[in-house]
Amino acid sequence: MSTISKAAAIGGGVIGAGWVARLLLNGIDVSIFDPDPEASRKVGEVMKGARRAYKQMLPGGLPKEGKLTYAKTIAEAVADADFIQESVPERLDLKHKVLAEIDMHAPANAIIGSSTSGIKPSDMQVAMKKHPERLVVGHPFNPVYLLPIVEIVGGAQTFPEAIEVAKEIYSSIGMKPVVIRKEIEAFVGDRLLEAAWREALWLIKDGICSVEELDDIMRYGFGLRWAQMGMFQVYRVAGGEAGMRHFMAQFGPCLKWPWTKLMDVPEFNDELVDLIATQSDEQSDKWSIRELEKIRDDNLVAIMDALSKQNKGKGWGAGALYKDYTKQLAAQAKPKVSKAAEKAKASKPVKKAAAKKKG
Amino acid sequence: MSTISKAAAIGGGVIGAGWVARLLLNGIDVSIFDPDPEASRKVGEVMKGARRAYKQMLPGGLPKEGKLTYAKTIAEAVADADFIQESVPERLDLKHKVLAEIDMHAPANAIIGSSTSGIKPSDMQVAMKKHPERLVVGHPFNPVYLLPIVEIVGGAQTFPEAIEVAKEIYSSIGMKPVVIRKEIEAFVGDRLLEAAWREALWLIKDGICSVEELDDIMRYGFGLRWAQMGMFQVYRVAGGEAGMRHFMAQFGPCLKWPWTKLMDVPEFNDELVDLIATQSDEQSDKWSIRELEKIRDDNLVAIMDALSKQNKGKGWGAGALYKDYTKQLAAQAKPKVSKAAEKAKASKPVKKAAAKKKG
Repeated sequence: MSTISKAAAIGGGVIGAGWVARLLLNGIDVSIFDPDPEASRKVGEVMKGARRAYKQMLPGGLPKEGKLTYAKTIAEAVADADFIQESVPERLDLKHKVLAEIDMHAPANAIIGSSTSGIKPSDMQVAMKKHPERLVVGHPFNPVYLLPIVEIVGGAQTFPEAIEVAKEIYSSIGMKPVVIRKEIEAFVGDRLLEAAWREALWLIKDGICSVEELDDIMRYGFGLRWAQMGMFQVYRVAGGEAGMRHFMAQFGPCLKWPWTKLMDVPEFNDELVDLIATQSDEQSDKWSIRELEKIRDDNLVAIMDALSKQNKGKGWGAGALYKDYTKQLAAQAKPKVSKAAEKAKASKPVKKAAAKKKG
Repeated sequence: MSTISKAAAIGGGVIGAGWVARLLLNGIDVSIFDPDPEASRKVGEVMKGARRAYKQMLPGGLPKEGKLTYAKTIAEAVADADFIQESVPERLDLKHKVLAEIDMHAPANAIIGSSTSGIKPSDMQVAMKKHPERLVVGHPFNPVYLLPIVEIVGGAQTFPEAIEVAKEIYSSIGMKPVVIRKEIEAFVGDRLLEAAWREALWLIKDGICSVEELDDIMRYGFGLRWAQMGMFQVYRVAGGEAGMRHFMAQFGPCLKWPWTKLMDVPEFNDELVDLIATQSDEQSDKWSIRELEKIRDDNLVAIMDALSKQNKGKGWGAGALYKDYTKQLAAQAKPKVSKAAEKAKASKPVKKAAAKKKG
């Protein structure tokens, strides 16, 4: 299995810093480039949160953290990296500029993952003059150090081997890679999120419910289902013994009903932004963002930990992965025992027994 | 607080039987009417699953179950009920027929809840000649005995008092009622589900991913987030210190991007049904539906239990409610101690002390 010897992170925002945290906590050295003068403080904040979460996942202790270096240029950051994750803002011109530079200076065999949540890899890799074939999208979800999913998407020039290596690399740091079969904008996760988000904006704009009420309908309802089974498996179970075909026959025609407001986009004006921001304050301003992050992380760890004990102890879904991941990290955390030390340990009982005889 | 003395369930499918299970496990007697000759077997199956789940929630023992009676007519079922939940198939003509009959025979002060997931209460209550003002939609999510959410919707003729009483009634059996502010088809939860479902059908039809891959992207990703915070709170946190306004400014314009296929509905033909049913078999036919139900229920209990210990022990979201609910049921399960027994218990230590002195 391909593992990472030395990683580079280009961009240290919420997503970039999340990657840095996951890598460092896996004991991997990371070189980061971010022109933001505040980058070090911001990455430090995310790292603090991630360390806190991993301490809960690993009560027996964490592996030795990787070393973080702040590079002055992209060239410096990627020079000796075998895995590079790009997480700069979502503008195609910026992606082109950054990826061209990464490509120019990275070792020829390094894999380059882009965190873009929407742009097609084919549209990005045209800017790479040397080895566009090693670019994949590796789209994570926030918080990157806890949520396991990563969508892998290859572009027209991406080699199948690069996708295979990327899968291995992401798996090696506790993630669940899913390879998207055809390249489309926004891939799969954000397509679903976008559809729900658009409908949510209508519901708020039309005064059907507040943001808190909508959130409650999710987290006391279908959100609990989707933490453990996706939409299709949930519906399969709901269809009962009659199965998926029955479910589809029963609910398929509903698509023609005048339900969702899918045919239109709500006008995104100040009024709507105000309405949502105000309601969001009402819902959440009793907590600071830092407090909410801690609550979120604690909840995510607790949910994955709970799922790791299900399915007759084998773990289920993200819980099965969590079980393997924490086991892997715990093994890594154990100090390696030298042969001499092992020998000494093996001889201890004899010494003890001898001591007893003497005593 | 209004609580239920005697409940009636009209319809015993997956949803109706889920209501019966929740009510019985709360110690409430239920009279059910369902013309299906298989009703008793089907309700029995759901009850078995629900009892199994509640045993995990309450290791100290369950409250005494309510008594279930199969009525031969709607009139007989509702005659002495103070809470009636209707869960018949989603056809307006059938809803009219059934609600008219319930209204005719139910006590004047009984609250009538409809499980409809899409039909407006105003469109249903026109069929009620006596007391249409006590009809509310009480829309639950499957499995009803475990998921706490219930969307309450009033129609044009519904009295505000009926909504208040309905809120109290649903709360008294461990649920989280959210009152929808304006009546629309499909309310809030199913609007969001419908939007995501429609997009999911496109993704499968276009071969972007399989149903298993789509499910994995949910349950290893944003599904874990939504089990504990809804969409708006999640995005508030993602916006970081800059807050909701920043988040909206950053992602708002994406709505204009060519992302979701929202402007169209996939044709719902045999080919699409076959594709999904076949992929669903590949994903899940290693388990029977009963096995999947057990796995789902175990997972849901484990997730809510895990969340009940979060937020400095106060519980978070569905976990805070779970904490209260299991406490309430555990208190109900304790045999009531008579005054004489209490007195005997109080005098025991004295006797023991006396015995000690003697010895």
